[in-house]
Parts: sequence; C-alpha cells; structure tokens
Amino acid sequence: MPSPVQSINPSPSETDARSTREPGRRMRSHLLDIAVELFKSRGLSGVSVAEIAQAADAFPSQVTYYFRTKEALFVEAACREILYTGEQAERAAAKATTLPLYTRALAESVVASPGLALFIEALTLARRRQDLAPLIERTFERLHSEGDRAYGAIRDLRNWPHDDDPALRARRFWALALGSVLRGAATGVDPEASARDMLELLDSDMAQQAPTSGARPPLQMVKAAPKDKHARSRTRSS
Amino acid sequence: MPSPVQSINPSPSETDARSTREPGRRMRSHLLDIAVELFKSRGLSGVSVAEIAQAADAFPSQVTYYFRTKEALFVEAACREILYTGEQAERAAAKATTLPLYTRALAESVVASPGLALFIEALTLARRRQDLAPLIERTFERLHSEGDRAYGAIRDLRNWPHDDDPALRARRFWALALGSVLRGAATGVDPEASARDMLELLDSDMAQQAPTSGARPPLQMVKAAPKDKHARSRTRSS
Repeated sequence: MPSPVQSINPSPSETDARSTREPGRRMRSHLLDIAVELFKSRGLSGVSVAEIAQAADAFPSQVTYYFRTKEALFVEAACREILYTGEQAERAAAKATTLPLYTRALAESVVASPGLALFIEALTLARRRQDLAPLIERTFERLHSEGDRAYGAIRDLRNWPHDDDPALRARRFWALALGSVLRGAATGVDPEASARDMLELLDSDMAQQAPTSGARPPLQMVKAAPKDKHARSRTRSS
Repeated sequence: MPSPVQSINPSPSETDARSTREPGRRMRSHLLDIAVELFKSRGLSGVSVAEIAQAADAFPSQVTYYFRTKEALFVEAACREILYTGEQAERAAAKATTLPLYTRALAESVVASPGLALFIEALTLARRRQDLAPLIERTFERLHSEGDRAYGAIRDLRNWPHDDDPALRARRFWALALGSVLRGAATGVDPEASARDMLELLDSDMAQQAPTSGARPPLQMVKAAPKDKHARSRTRSS
C-alpha cells in the first residue's frame, strides 16, 4: 500500500528534485521509517543524525542530503506518522454501528497512538521554524479532508442523522485531540482517561449515550497526584 | 493585587518551607516576574539561570534555592502566567452583552496572549518531567473552575439561556484554545484567524451569530503558504 506521505511530500521545488527518481524515493522513505521509530522512543533531542544513519545502514550525509536538517526530518516523519494514525483510527472505527461508538473508537485509537504525541512535538518545534509550516499545513488539510470523507461515507452507509457538518466535525475532532492529549500527557493521565475527556468535550450528548466500560471518574491521575490538599481551597482575592 | 499563583504555589511540603516567610515569598515572586518576561521573549532554551538571576539582581543560587531547576521555574512561571491570561480574558469579556460576543472576546484575548504559548511549551516539557505534573493539574483545575464561575455569573447577570453546562463549557474552551493555538502557531496563522477557527469549533451556531469584523476566510496564512499547488490534489490510493 503506498504511503499517505506521498501526498504531503515536499514538492519537487522544495527538495530540489532530490527524490524524484525511484531509488531516491525509496531511500528517503526508508530513512523516514527508521527515524520515526527512533523519534517515537526517544524524542527529537534523544536522537542524532548519525544514529539515524547507522540504524538505516546509510551515511549521515544521505540524511542531510534528503532532509537538510534533523528538525526537518523530524517534522516530516511526524506528519507522515499522524496520517497513518488517522488511517488506523478509521479502520478501528469502521465496524461501529452507532455514531457514539464510531466516535469513541476514533478517539481511543488516536489518543493512544504515539503518532499524536510525535505530531504535537513537531507542532511545538515548527512554531520557531516557520520554513516547516507548509508541510504541517498540508498535513492538517489532509487529516481534515480524510476525516470529513470517512465520516460522510459511514454516515451514509449506516443511515445516521445528517444534522451535522462532517468537515467541521473533523476539524473539531483533531483540535480536541491535540488539546486533550497535550493536557493528558502533561498531567500524567492514562490514554483512556484522555479519550473519555475528549469525547465529553467533542459532543456531550454522545459521550453519555456511548456505553462505558466501567464507572470511572472522568480523569484519573496515574503517575502523579497533587500533594497539597489546601491548594485548591485557597481563595484568590482580586 | 495578590497574584493568582498563591493558590497554585507548590505547597510547603513540596518546597521544604523555603518560601513560607514573607521575604522569601517576595523574592520568589520577584524571580517569577523576571523569569516570565525573559521566557516569553526567548523561550525555555534561550534563557539561562544566570541570566534570570542577573536580571532579578539576585544570585543564581537563589534561583535554584527557590525553584531547584530552570525547568521547574519555567513551568511555575507559565502556570502563573496562564492564570493571568484567563483573568485578563474575563475582564476583556465582562462588558459583552450577548453570549456570542462574550465567547468571542474571551477567545480573542486568550489566543493572542503570549501566556498561552508559554503554557503550551510548559505542557510539552512536563510530558517528560512528571514531577511537574501536580502543579499543571492544579492550574487546569483552577482555569476550569474560574471559567465555570465567570460564565455562570455573567449568564445569570445577563439572563442568558441556561441550557448548557458552564463547567463543561470551560473545559471545552481551554482544550480548543490549546488545540487551535498549537496548530495556528505551527502553521503561521495570525492570532485573529486562530481565534475565529477556535470559535467555529467551540460552538458553530455561535460563531455564525457573532458579528464579524470583515469577510475573511477562516484561516489566513501569514508567514508561509504551501508552495506546491499539486500536493493537495494528489490522490492517495489505499
């Protein structure tokens, strides 16, 4: 199956036609495959160009030839990975028989994926690297249009109500996924709790309709809990 | 006016009672004031403990005495700043006469604030520093409870409809603010466009009701635009 990154690759004009021939495309894709696994486990700062080259059985100069910088490689790898994440979520949700179950399957799949955490790191990086903005913008467009298309298709297939806008729904889904996972990762909650949080925010009616797998509080601390009992009850005078 | 950070300070047990006396509290607060301005302009990696100490007319050992690490200082400064950002947004929105205008004033104020960008950087950092999670969790609780309280109060004051849940609304507001700004900053859109994007996602009816300041597309690229016209139209075969 061709990779979805084909459609968000830097254009020939952006890469000086370095990867327009087939062997070049293969090496480029191979480097991305290797790099994404290293980045997933160690983050941007934990991986060097030399390590990527070694793991890919290539020379460091090949990495910089195709991607110029480690940061550009990181962002491209993260953009490709989030598109896979979206595809996997669609497959996970395709069997759902009701809209709440569909939305829940999507959210649980996306929130638990290391691809989303990687993409968030790429977004943070791109804030100070505006040369990487076009690729990120195209990735969002693709995420939104794929989400729009997938939801529209299953809605027709299952005869679900047509009272919402699939395109708006897809944008809201990804914005809330970013917001919920950014918060969840920083506060040490597990992915299931982040997904429940996201579902409540996405569509409060829907979250209540969906059968839950147990009576749990909306957000559960996993690794860390506030130590200071008094902090919350102190009042602010303003 | 006392700072809102009083209510989210690390507890005495967390700081070994280092700042329980008045001079200690003043120095701690002064260091936070100085640090937040430096961090806002240069980010975490662009500022050293020595520079913070120098700008605050203090010794580096005082910075580490009160905060242990630059990262802990950064997260505390960002948490304090986002609470100010929330307060400023409430003040900016307090005169609004309709719910759509209120929501728009809140969103525009928050999205344009450097406090939100700083807080996002702190969230990204805390993902790998779970010792900082409790402070971030308390900050979210405070943001949500203040948003809940402020919206509930103005809704009663203005006799707006009571058909939504203010607590859920506050959580959705902040999750979408994080998601929209994370995306907007990475793709180089201006804060106004990010605020419009956020408003559409927050409540599509409301965004349409609110008078707009001009007929502009929902998202406008400022610094960077996709160079590759063909990228979007390439189809993916899967």
